[in-house]
Amino acid sequence: MAIYNFSAGPAVLPREVLQQAQAELIDWHGSGMSVMEMSHRGKEYMGIHAQAEADLRELMAIPANYKVLFLQGGAHLQFSMIPFNLLRGKSSADYANTGEWSKKAIGEAKKFCNVNVAASNTDRNCTYVPAFDTWKLDKDAAYVHYTPNETIGGVEFNWIPNTGDVPLVADMSSNILSRPVDVWKFGLIYAGAQKNIGPAGLTLVIVREDLVGHADPRLPTMLDYKTHADNESMYNTPPTFAIYMAGLVFQWLKKNGGIGAMERANIAKADLLYAAIDASNGFYNCPVNKADRSRMNVPFTLKDANLDGDFLKQADARGLLQLKGHRSVGGMRASIYNAMPLEGVQALVGFMNEFASKHG
Amino acid sequence: MAIYNFSAGPAVLPREVLQQAQAELIDWHGSGMSVMEMSHRGKEYMGIHAQAEADLRELMAIPANYKVLFLQGGAHLQFSMIPFNLLRGKSSADYANTGEWSKKAIGEAKKFCNVNVAASNTDRNCTYVPAFDTWKLDKDAAYVHYTPNETIGGVEFNWIPNTGDVPLVADMSSNILSRPVDVWKFGLIYAGAQKNIGPAGLTLVIVREDLVGHADPRLPTMLDYKTHADNESMYNTPPTFAIYMAGLVFQWLKKNGGIGAMERANIAKADLLYAAIDASNGFYNCPVNKADRSRMNVPFTLKDANLDGDFLKQADARGLLQLKGHRSVGGMRASIYNAMPLEGVQALVGFMNEFASKHG
Repeated sequence: MAIYNFSAGPAVLPREVLQQAQAELIDWHGSGMSVMEMSHRGKEYMGIHAQAEADLRELMAIPANYKVLFLQGGAHLQFSMIPFNLLRGKSSADYANTGEWSKKAIGEAKKFCNVNVAASNTDRNCTYVPAFDTWKLDKDAAYVHYTPNETIGGVEFNWIPNTGDVPLVADMSSNILSRPVDVWKFGLIYAGAQKNIGPAGLTLVIVREDLVGHADPRLPTMLDYKTHADNESMYNTPPTFAIYMAGLVFQWLKKNGGIGAMERANIAKADLLYAAIDASNGFYNCPVNKADRSRMNVPFTLKDANLDGDFLKQADARGLLQLKGHRSVGGMRASIYNAMPLEGVQALVGFMNEFASKHG
Repeated sequence: MAIYNFSAGPAVLPREVLQQAQAELIDWHGSGMSVMEMSHRGKEYMGIHAQAEADLRELMAIPANYKVLFLQGGAHLQFSMIPFNLLRGKSSADYANTGEWSKKAIGEAKKFCNVNVAASNTDRNCTYVPAFDTWKLDKDAAYVHYTPNETIGGVEFNWIPNTGDVPLVADMSSNILSRPVDVWKFGLIYAGAQKNIGPAGLTLVIVREDLVGHADPRLPTMLDYKTHADNESMYNTPPTFAIYMAGLVFQWLKKNGGIGAMERANIAKADLLYAAIDASNGFYNCPVNKADRSRMNVPFTLKDANLDGDFLKQADARGLLQLKGHRSVGGMRASIYNAMPLEGVQALVGFMNEFASKHG
């Protein structure tokens, strides 16, 4: 039986990537070592590390004046590192509040600066993207932070806020590499790896050079982007195996047509799933405004919540795994990242239609 | 040809552990998922996580009033987290300076408190452990920090400082699990995983409960031990695959007689190597005071440094890898952690004797 894993993260990885990792797990390229056993200062690992960065730069067309950092601590540690590094003597930053992950970023930033909530969608239960002409930006803000894709709420931006000279900061944890993005429009992009990049334990930061080097020297050395930028992410031992896995994913993306091809596939998958929800005569419901629906995380409820348990049990029996929604939203959530094949979504839709016709 | 990897870290892992990881890399126990693909909130991963902690508690006989935390950021991030959490309103901490890693810990702590260097071995180039009766401890210190094994200098404590009511803090990155340790004598033990535990990207912290909960709430949430202690290391997504690998290593340790058996094997390996150095009539030299020589990291120089290149090249050709010493010490360094088999040290000693008789 084919297994399709709809986990929101850690999440499905490309089968070919796992097969390659398995084949070379004990002896990488005849070195006699597992990647996990390699000194991070040795030529073998240094090559893996440099190739991963080069491939990511190519895939995302990252300009030369941006640093790529491979860090640890997840988006949660970035919630502190961003104000530490980007306030640059200012006392206030703008944040858009569009869901659970925005709220976490805001909550942590409030420890370190004044947070101006420039936009919010809480008036309609976080189910839409606030139009840009309603944003109340502060021209003196140190930066503007937003969450292009809300993993829990399933709300995704289809546009990039134009914040002029104020650096734009984006938590792309759950939609990085899923669509082309103009990196030059951002001051800083960050992402936990465990959704669309690789295994948990790696955090990617892409930061414009002029924003590096302004952290207060009294803060922890490890929380200063300059520490890592000056040492090519090798100030301390990096999470070498996670970076190697991310590198394999980058190569897989390149082999499969890059991010443009990925976007087309992601649109096809999302369209198929949303169409099934919308055609179910209300048996299934996605509360998100149609124009703002996420291509990555599809939350939906059953009309009769008493059927949730049966739905999950039967889905599981068919190899459709990890569909339970986040406790704050309830119902179901299907995360359909790059590595989820179209066949997985087809299998899910087939099951959903069958379940609806039995119980509708 | 057998390959023996003497890297100081990331370092050799037990062959059986790598084989098991390889066998279940794509489909863990019939789940249809790689461990890397599992939600950290799912029953499969939760089981792996709990088992790893239980096995570690058993191996180290960790008392019930200690928390075990699986964190990220390495020893370097602990250098900040320790003063943040353990100062508890005090302004000063005692540090023993016994080498490069002590110095790094001291340098970072100086950002956050007064550091009293209670003991130092810099008068003899960091080649010995200062006798405890020479330590100038401050009875009002918030804690006493030391480095039981200096990975670069190859100096190891064979005793535990008795600091009375002042909590003792130890960076055990390079000798944890290599010998039995009375955990109850410590306030906090920490270790980067990439030497004797598992892959890089995981940091282990064992902390006495009464020392948790005193961090300044204005500091980053992620740097407060309480955040992680209250959430069983799942406040945010943990480095799941690294924890799984550590768990396999813990099971391997249990299968092979536990830490007591490991210590006997480590003594045998270290004795063999140091004996070869000392019997070489000065062809090889280890500068470390004999009573304080590390069982884990064995630095040695060649009498004629012009032969260093030949030594490394020939060693490499025999599958004896990563023997180059740290740039601050020069010469060679053989790291012989738990996962290095006796055969590896025998092969190294065989080569060293042969090389010496050719060039001596």
